[in-house]
Amino acid sequence: MGKIVTFGEVLMRLSPPEYRKIQQSTQFDFFFGGTEMNVAASLSKFGLPVQHVSTVSNDIVGEAALAAMRQYGIDVSQVKKVDHPLGLYFMEIGSGMRASQIAYNRMHGAFAHITPDMVNWDEALQDCTWLHWTGISPAISNGAYETLKAGLQKAMDKGIDITADPAYRSNLWKYGKDGKEVLGELVGLSTIFIGGINEINEILGTDYSHYKDNFISAAESLMAKYPNIIKVFDKVRTGVSASHQKVYGRAWVNKHYFETPEIEIVDVVDRIGTGDAYAAGLIYGLQHYDDQHALNFANAACALKHTLPGDVNLVSADEVLEVAEGNISGRLKR
Amino acid sequence: MGKIVTFGEVLMRLSPPEYRKIQQSTQFDFFFGGTEMNVAASLSKFGLPVQHVSTVSNDIVGEAALAAMRQYGIDVSQVKKVDHPLGLYFMEIGSGMRASQIAYNRMHGAFAHITPDMVNWDEALQDCTWLHWTGISPAISNGAYETLKAGLQKAMDKGIDITADPAYRSNLWKYGKDGKEVLGELVGLSTIFIGGINEINEILGTDYSHYKDNFISAAESLMAKYPNIIKVFDKVRTGVSASHQKVYGRAWVNKHYFETPEIEIVDVVDRIGTGDAYAAGLIYGLQHYDDQHALNFANAACALKHTLPGDVNLVSADEVLEVAEGNISGRLKR
Amino acid sequence: MGKIVTFGEVLMRLSPPEYRKIQQSTQFDFFFGGTEMNVAASLSKFGLPVQHVSTVSNDIVGEAALAAMRQYGIDVSQVKKVDHPLGLYFMEIGSGMRASQIAYNRMHGAFAHITPDMVNWDEALQDCTWLHWTGISPAISNGAYETLKAGLQKAMDKGIDITADPAYRSNLWKYGKDGKEVLGELVGLSTIFIGGINEINEILGTDYSHYKDNFISAAESLMAKYPNIIKVFDKVRTGVSASHQKVYGRAWVNKHYFETPEIEIVDVVDRIGTGDAYAAGLIYGLQHYDDQHALNFANAACALKHTLPGDVNLVSADEVLEVAEGNISGRLKR
Amino acid sequence: MGKIVTFGEVLMRLSPPEYRKIQQSTQFDFFFGGTEMNVAASLSKFGLPVQHVSTVSNDIVGEAALAAMRQYGIDVSQVKKVDHPLGLYFMEIGSGMRASQIAYNRMHGAFAHITPDMVNWDEALQDCTWLHWTGISPAISNGAYETLKAGLQKAMDKGIDITADPAYRSNLWKYGKDGKEVLGELVGLSTIFIGGINEINEILGTDYSHYKDNFISAAESLMAKYPNIIKVFDKVRTGVSASHQKVYGRAWVNKHYFETPEIEIVDVVDRIGTGDAYAAGLIYGLQHYDDQHALNFANAACALKHTLPGDVNLVSADEVLEVAEGNISGRLKR
Amino acid sequence: MGKIVTFGEVLMRLSPPEYRKIQQSTQFDFFFGGTEMNVAASLSKFGLPVQHVSTVSNDIVGEAALAAMRQYGIDVSQVKKVDHPLGLYFMEIGSGMRASQIAYNRMHGAFAHITPDMVNWDEALQDCTWLHWTGISPAISNGAYETLKAGLQKAMDKGIDITADPAYRSNLWKYGKDGKEVLGELVGLSTIFIGGINEINEILGTDYSHYKDNFISAAESLMAKYPNIIKVFDKVRTGVSASHQKVYGRAWVNKHYFETPEIEIVDVVDRIGTGDAYAAGLIYGLQHYDDQHALNFANAACALKHTLPGDVNLVSADEVLEVAEGNISGRLKR
Amino acid sequence: MGKIVTFGEVLMRLSPPEYRKIQQSTQFDFFFGGTEMNVAASLSKFGLPVQHVSTVSNDIVGEAALAAMRQYGIDVSQVKKVDHPLGLYFMEIGSGMRASQIAYNRMHGAFAHITPDMVNWDEALQDCTWLHWTGISPAISNGAYETLKAGLQKAMDKGIDITADPAYRSNLWKYGKDGKEVLGELVGLSTIFIGGINEINEILGTDYSHYKDNFISAAESLMAKYPNIIKVFDKVRTGVSASHQKVYGRAWVNKHYFETPEIEIVDVVDRIGTGDAYAAGLIYGLQHYDDQHALNFANAACALKHTLPGDVNLVSADEVLEVAEGNISGRLKR
Repeated sequence: MGKIVTFGEVLMRLSPPEYRKIQQSTQFDFFFGGTEMNVAASLSKFGLPVQHVSTVSNDIVGEAALAAMRQYGIDVSQVKKVDHPLGLYFMEIGSGMRASQIAYNRMHGAFAHITPDMVNWDEALQDCTWLHWTGISPAISNGAYETLKAGLQKAMDKGIDITADPAYRSNLWKYGKDGKEVLGELVGLSTIFIGGINEINEILGTDYSHYKDNFISAAESLMAKYPNIIKVFDKVRTGVSASHQKVYGRAWVNKHYFETPEIEIVDVVDRIGTGDAYAAGLIYGLQHYDDQHALNFANAACALKHTLPGDVNLVSADEVLEVAEGNISGRLKR
Repeated sequence: MGKIVTFGEVLMRLSPPEYRKIQQSTQFDFFFGGTEMNVAASLSKFGLPVQHVSTVSNDIVGEAALAAMRQYGIDVSQVKKVDHPLGLYFMEIGSGMRASQIAYNRMHGAFAHITPDMVNWDEALQDCTWLHWTGISPAISNGAYETLKAGLQKAMDKGIDITADPAYRSNLWKYGKDGKEVLGELVGLSTIFIGGINEINEILGTDYSHYKDNFISAAESLMAKYPNIIKVFDKVRTGVSASHQKVYGRAWVNKHYFETPEIEIVDVVDRIGTGDAYAAGLIYGLQHYDDQHALNFANAACALKHTLPGDVNLVSADEVLEVAEGNISGRLKR
Repeated sequence: MGKIVTFGEVLMRLSPPEYRKIQQSTQFDFFFGGTEMNVAASLSKFGLPVQHVSTVSNDIVGEAALAAMRQYGIDVSQVKKVDHPLGLYFMEIGSGMRASQIAYNRMHGAFAHITPDMVNWDEALQDCTWLHWTGISPAISNGAYETLKAGLQKAMDKGIDITADPAYRSNLWKYGKDGKEVLGELVGLSTIFIGGINEINEILGTDYSHYKDNFISAAESLMAKYPNIIKVFDKVRTGVSASHQKVYGRAWVNKHYFETPEIEIVDVVDRIGTGDAYAAGLIYGLQHYDDQHALNFANAACALKHTLPGDVNLVSADEVLEVAEGNISGRLKR
Repeated sequence: MGKIVTFGEVLMRLSPPEYRKIQQSTQFDFFFGGTEMNVAASLSKFGLPVQHVSTVSNDIVGEAALAAMRQYGIDVSQVKKVDHPLGLYFMEIGSGMRASQIAYNRMHGAFAHITPDMVNWDEALQDCTWLHWTGISPAISNGAYETLKAGLQKAMDKGIDITADPAYRSNLWKYGKDGKEVLGELVGLSTIFIGGINEINEILGTDYSHYKDNFISAAESLMAKYPNIIKVFDKVRTGVSASHQKVYGRAWVNKHYFETPEIEIVDVVDRIGTGDAYAAGLIYGLQHYDDQHALNFANAACALKHTLPGDVNLVSADEVLEVAEGNISGRLKR
Repeated sequence: MGKIVTFGEVLMRLSPPEYRKIQQSTQFDFFFGGTEMNVAASLSKFGLPVQHVSTVSNDIVGEAALAAMRQYGIDVSQVKKVDHPLGLYFMEIGSGMRASQIAYNRMHGAFAHITPDMVNWDEALQDCTWLHWTGISPAISNGAYETLKAGLQKAMDKGIDITADPAYRSNLWKYGKDGKEVLGELVGLSTIFIGGINEINEILGTDYSHYKDNFISAAESLMAKYPNIIKVFDKVRTGVSASHQKVYGRAWVNKHYFETPEIEIVDVVDRIGTGDAYAAGLIYGLQHYDDQHALNFANAACALKHTLPGDVNLVSADEVLEVAEGNISGRLKR
Repeated sequence: MGKIVTFGEVLMRLSPPEYRKIQQSTQFDFFFGGTEMNVAASLSKFGLPVQHVSTVSNDIVGEAALAAMRQYGIDVSQVKKVDHPLGLYFMEIGSGMRASQIAYNRMHGAFAHITPDMVNWDEALQDCTWLHWTGISPAISNGAYETLKAGLQKAMDKGIDITADPAYRSNLWKYGKDGKEVLGELVGLSTIFIGGINEINEILGTDYSHYKDNFISAAESLMAKYPNIIKVFDKVRTGVSASHQKVYGRAWVNKHYFETPEIEIVDVVDRIGTGDAYAAGLIYGLQHYDDQHALNFANAACALKHTLPGDVNLVSADEVLEVAEGNISGRLKR
């Protein structure tokens, strides 16, 4: 099995400790993350070889971002340094009914200045059997979009599996392109779709409502328009409060619907990166199990990430497997 | 709309971190608070002009207390420095069935030494349209009582709205006055009563029990004796455990009873200041909405404070409004 | 009433803060504990005189361990210094469905090198009316086993009450002795048994299943083989998740079965030492109340420990009593 | 005496603790500062009324920046919120021979987007008797330059004292204007010059070398070209190492040269803001003492700032005075 | 050799970390100390049996103070709980030329309420061969004075060695007694005097200046008036800055003058408790060495305390001895 | 230029913060280090490819050790997991005249259990042009000695440069071998000697004293006995106090003596790893400069490490070069 390659921004997250507002603190906890890099890091923790393609700032912050990626076992040979600050965001962490609040500083950052000539995709895709991207990357800048598209085209040519996680965030997409259109174009350069009714509605311009039958119809429509997509995996979240979440997975593959049991997390430690944990779990699962078990693994990985601080799901495949098999008692391991 | 003026002690709270006992720690987290100052700070965060009347110690602690108040946007021109230490208390924070424990050091502090000549009430009440007090202040010392009474009388003369939150704590009131009698006298110098059956029983010497009908009867009795009181707002709390609370509000206004839905907080971050958050929410609500919506706003503000560390409800009016309208999913705000 | 003596290893526990993995942290929180020392510390907090018998390292770590024990009010005159490092373990603290993970470093430590000649049992047992041991100690080394046995024999001769908490952990017992056999031998030198079906099965080689009737039969069998055992107290735990536990106690004394109500802990702060809190509660209870109330006290102590960080149940007897009597509202104590 | 008005960027500074590299840490200490705001804050601590003119981000970071300024007693009524992130920088703190390293993220920030229409200079300059600016502000963007110039022109018309601290940093000035030319223009709209040979060389295009006689000649040349400048005050620093600095002040006023004794700081706690402390000391000094004592006061303020963490010189005028008078024994004040 | 008994207040010290002002912090580091208790703790660390006589608050703070004392190995059986808060003080830690600043809160605390009937001096002085007091204790309240005097009289009757460290602080002594007179009376109930020209001038009303010859004359005068004093030991400190101190000891015993070399501390970690370290070193030294070596030991102990955080000199006698013998290279001990 | 390979133990270091004793703290700061791994990490920071050969524990601690090494850019493919705990040590950090104190726990750890069959030296030495070892490794266990010898023999056969840093620590070497003899044998399998008179005396059994001429004679004798050694580099340290050190380098190469200027560090941040920084600087220097400049670079690297926390010299080659060229002003880098 070859390496898995991811592409996307590396961001610094800064939060005051203990549910505080910035004004109540003199310190920030920080983590390096980024939706696609998180996927790579989780897969590395599962034991798979990974590489991330990105840019970081050419300063002390970029140095630390590189060290963080290396710590996760990520090959950083295609992470270039550019003379723009690393993207970052501040988050005041909510609790219960109080939502977390975020302030971004990324639109003029290192990743926004990536261009296709900075990436040697041939080198990146050598010995690569899986490529993963999300809808955040092409939303940042035209350069990011062009760079991603170049990679996807090469990967499609090489027959590499490509997971697309094309979430559409309207408050990004400021550089002029129509986000929904671009996402559609890139889904046309992918093989596995991670998303549900919302994502499909955005890409197809449809308005399916949120029922199971609709999920199937939506998935069917998507695959009709993009026959290159052979599997659709969705993650369904119910947010009772900032501290209390429920998640389950569902899928439409080969005209077959299946889903996982719902897992409930009543004491959320950190919600960031739970979707990325799902994607990583799915990629690992599809490489090791059948589709149903892959989905179970993905949902368990997603649930476990809620219990761990930071952006990255630093749990082993064995820990995920145990939860996927229904053991959620959290019994002490001596 | 003019400014809101509050009167009362500023206290430092010191707690060992992470539910520890003092003996298990080498550090304290500290906050400046004080039941009436918390109300002012919350109202300032909602965007209203506020002033606090008090005394602080004439030392490095008092300097820091002033800085804290200024940070909250509070006008401190009527906070005087006196040569006595700032009041403070230690709190070991409980969890679940284990109660928090408090040790006070306030009875010989800066606020206990306030006297009417230290406060220029004419200046404080200029452009003021609302005055707020609680039963804690007159319990500290005769000087505090006299100072408050002087302010209330001037405010009544000027037709200013006056919220009375006359909680009776028997372990205060050590300077010789009969607390219940004093509270009655001061309620006679107020226009809106924040309290329920307990508070009314204490002031009237009655013994209403804890049923809804009784609340109405009690409120009626209160308004019969103190016709200056035109509205009665109560907050009802059910403490399942130190970490799990339920709150709702009820009111008796113009012979009309109304109440709010109950809100449940299952992961209490900090219980201190939740009553103050209610009072601030009520004052803001009464200035912006009808009585029912004001009560909803107050209860939502109270609930939100449980999710935030510190004494002060540092949430915006928009955040409160959202909860008041029933959105308690705590969904991440990007 | 004389002093209570405990015997066992003193360990340092090291954990990264806030549910982190070691890799995500630059700091450890640490506590000194040890299952039997925790019992002594809790009893001291209840107001009883206690002494601990052990060895610590002859270095800066052992110095600190001694200071910690003295802080708890434990008589350390029979804690000797030896030229081997103090035992320790690392724990990554789990949450929800994610289990805590532990890495031990104790098999070549100070306690593993204890030998009978290092302990003056005559001095330790002077004015002693209670001796407590657990199955961890004889599992560490032959010297530990020999030292404990010497103490138990002297204590039996003196008619001292002896609580045996003989949990069998198969991943200890590396020095050659058959653990189950040794535990049986030492139970033969004790008067009160703390344990349930699992522990009895291990010692007797039986295979009782987990029903109430079986508990009684198992206890009967145990007392048939070891007539020196006059009371059997069990603690039953249900682990919903790492953060959510339920506990109740049951007992078989004088052919009489009784149990406590179950107490639920939904926001576990620290699970370590909850069994030790039970044992200490039981010893205190048996010295002050009848057996049913002793059991209630033990279960309440166990429940309370879940709400407190660290290894030791630093709550007062009054706090336990309140919970034992059913007050679990955690209402703030001003 | 009227208020003092300052104009400039508010920045967040983020540093890993204890001389660490970012890669060695999981936390940042942060401070809000900004060269001109620091001057305002120091003057407020000395007891003078101050106002700062600026923009902050319209998010949780900008909220906290406003709270910080209010905490320092700064009037923020002319600080506007704009939809761009607050400027910030990361600093790895050096020690001894190891230099501190900085990474900026400010060129697309809130202050870079200030424009003259956002500031009501008439309101800001009402009751104002002193205006202070530095060469950093006009270097950030054309809007910042235009806004400052508008204020200076109005202040000159009103006869307000204006301190210019026109340090030229070549790595700023990216928006197209010639920095040295702009600084000259703005010095022409000021009355007191804070700077020495370097600054004068940059503005006049001269190349005076670093000897005392040259300082006088340089100052003379400056005042010849800009007769509006009536006083020149310089600060001379010798950096033995990152932890060891020496500072003294010198001046040329009315054809008269004078200087202060040199003060040595052997254990630098924080170098940031020492120049701002000098400027604030000078403004306070010129308002309260003769020129020589003002300079002594400024140099003492600068020296004291090295001993205090953060950007702002949070010492009282009395503390400065004591050092200005030569008491540097740091004797404990009980 | 019997135990050493000390008498005096136990105080909590609270400081913001890292040389910060309170206003710049959200946390305090805290230590329990007290000039006489510090002496006891240091002596215990040297291996001697010690007991402290005092009162603490009957609350969670007093509990923690007791635990701290026990941790240091101090016998606390004569420390009583009273219903008044524990004395405390805040300290902003200075650096270089910036002095530390202190705000006390002790005049209505637990120790101020001690009275002779609370202390069983007969029990305290049993097996006691040394009693130590300072001039702080009788300055706090009449009760403290009376209690101390009662102890001194009993100790004199028993022929116990008594060290008097009668520093006079004018800002204490608020309860009506003439401090200098009281100190004289109590020096009349002591055998060894720790102090120099300042202290002697205060007690005798003389005005010796600060030269060596004067020290001898002063000591002679003191011993003439108080023939019970048989030895006089002085500590001479030169404060270059808050971070840089020099200390040496001198003595007058049996008409013989001797002194120690001066030790220089260039990076002071914590100055609090350095005088107490000297006193403890002296007591230990006088019990183990001749007078000259005792003085060397005392001065080395004092110097070492500057390098250690907290109030107590937690170094071993061996570490002191090494410095007393001139090894100050601080070479790593593996 | 090929990679550099290092061989040796990876240790965890644990220290209470801020110069505290363990007893005064509830937390440890920790770092992963190890004398040879530190060399690899520093060389990686300089930009060179490195690999470390070792064993770590097969648990959560070993996982974190691997992550730390990867973070430094070290190839860990020859680091094996074994079922023994990772070696560690506690250090109480001294200051001024107070020495740091260390307590080791390594003699039964993961590295002590390394055996030659665990290492694939052929793979490790592929593309390798430099091998580095120290005298600590063969002192730990016979397995470590055998493993190292196997590697050295293969490296000698391949003509790889081998730096030997054979410090002899008598308190290691507990497994039966004669340490001095072993070190001599291994020096016979090396090409560059890092050490001075002490090290040579130990290996040759000579007793050269500490003068320059003796260094030359000693080096000559060493090279006479071990003609494979072609260069001798020494580091000379003067420890004024724990906080104040001086270092310079000297060498004997091709019958030629040369040395560096002495560099003084007056505020030591962390002394651990300064010798390793020297070794790494030397290896980098010898690959890039002539011998004199290599030595200058090594000494500058050593000096810089004193200013940085942690075991690893995380400075760039440019930073070292600047200090090597005499710029030690520590001027802020914006």
